[in-house]
Amino acid sequence: MLERLKTTKREGWRRFGINHGESISDHMYRMSIITMLCPPSLASRIDMNRCIKMALVHDMAELLVGDITPVDGVLKSEKSRRESTTMDFLCKDLLGNVGGGDAGAEIKRAWQEYEDSETLESNFVHDVDKMELILQMLEYEKSHEGRIDLGEFTHVANRIVLPEVKQWCDQALDDRKAYWESIGKTPTGYQNAEQGQDVEKKKMSDEYYSGQYANGNHKEQ
Amino acid sequence: MLERLKTTKREGWRRFGINHGESISDHMYRMSIITMLCPPSLASRIDMNRCIKMALVHDMAELLVGDITPVDGVLKSEKSRRESTTMDFLCKDLLGNVGGGDAGAEIKRAWQEYEDSETLESNFVHDVDKMELILQMLEYEKSHEGRIDLGEFTHVANRIVLPEVKQWCDQALDDRKAYWESIGKTPTGYQNAEQGQDVEKKKMSDEYYSGQYANGNHKEQ
Repeated sequence: MLERLKTTKREGWRRFGINHGESISDHMYRMSIITMLCPPSLASRIDMNRCIKMALVHDMAELLVGDITPVDGVLKSEKSRRESTTMDFLCKDLLGNVGGGDAGAEIKRAWQEYEDSETLESNFVHDVDKMELILQMLEYEKSHEGRIDLGEFTHVANRIVLPEVKQWCDQALDDRKAYWESIGKTPTGYQNAEQGQDVEKKKMSDEYYSGQYANGNHKEQ
Repeated sequence: MLERLKTTKREGWRRFGINHGESISDHMYRMSIITMLCPPSLASRIDMNRCIKMALVHDMAELLVGDITPVDGVLKSEKSRRESTTMDFLCKDLLGNVGGGDAGAEIKRAWQEYEDSETLESNFVHDVDKMELILQMLEYEKSHEGRIDLGEFTHVANRIVLPEVKQWCDQALDDRKAYWESIGKTPTGYQNAEQGQDVEKKKMSDEYYSGQYANGNHKEQ
């Protein structure tokens, strides 16, 4: 079953012709490492181990549900329902006998904490989800030597909640700006969160993330 | 940098024509989840959070060193030296300023605990490394519908140390046996650890894992 997490590619990048891009398990792996790199002022206030577990399981339901992105137009409530049912199937039916059921229960608990988005830890991991997207975007732009402009994705920076992560993200967007300047081009997307975003991107962002459509508060790509 | 962990494929499978196989980050991701599925009798005796961290970082050095496998003939001491230097570069030079240096130090600590292989937790994660290989082997054999026989890799089952993981692995090898029987074929490799292994595979295993060559006690593929 785990196999499917790595054979299912993240859909958002496919629209830009990046077909050999990251799998869902790549995405969760990267998030777990980014979580560990948490700024110290925040790290001292959170339970890092819970955050790492959330990062590792938060998209696990997608191995059966598929990677539903904002442009697919699936209602958020429906996406959430499908994923919750899937997690019950995984954690109770498939893993119910593994580790006396404890392992499945712990995975479902971490998934639910992320989904509920009520704790500081889960807020942080939601921010890391956005941060991972920004960092991945930058890596793709650099590896394509400026031939692909992924500025559309920069709008997620506006939705980062914790000031420590916002600052971290601004640094990354400053790096992006410097990279494009170094090759003599101007990319779309705003340069960092302080500078606001252009009108078209703002409209697109509002439509995607109004809370009506899937992924409103927990999935950026 | 993290990008390279997912673009670098695990070499062991490539020899069998599986070119779109798992990346190093896929492998570490799967190990982190398998770690969480630890049998309860063992789970109650170990620090699971340390195990998860070890699983996530143990092969991180490979993003720069490359995936050296037993057949490459690099001395274990040399592999270890290269990887340790790489981890220092990653954790001190690159991450020295991230999180006040704490994040890098914690990653190096987890990597070193795995490398030293002296704690119960690190022994467990070494066993999980072997368990992940066995499970991946089974998935590849099934997805190729019995056209590829990966029995060569079953020998790692003999090197699992903890009885709880050995038992888990025997179940997986029993599943393998049942799968091949269901398609009317007989695979190479032994069926489970209790039944011993055939002479040729034993010889191959001894050569690979004599301790002289790289990966003797910490890398199975």
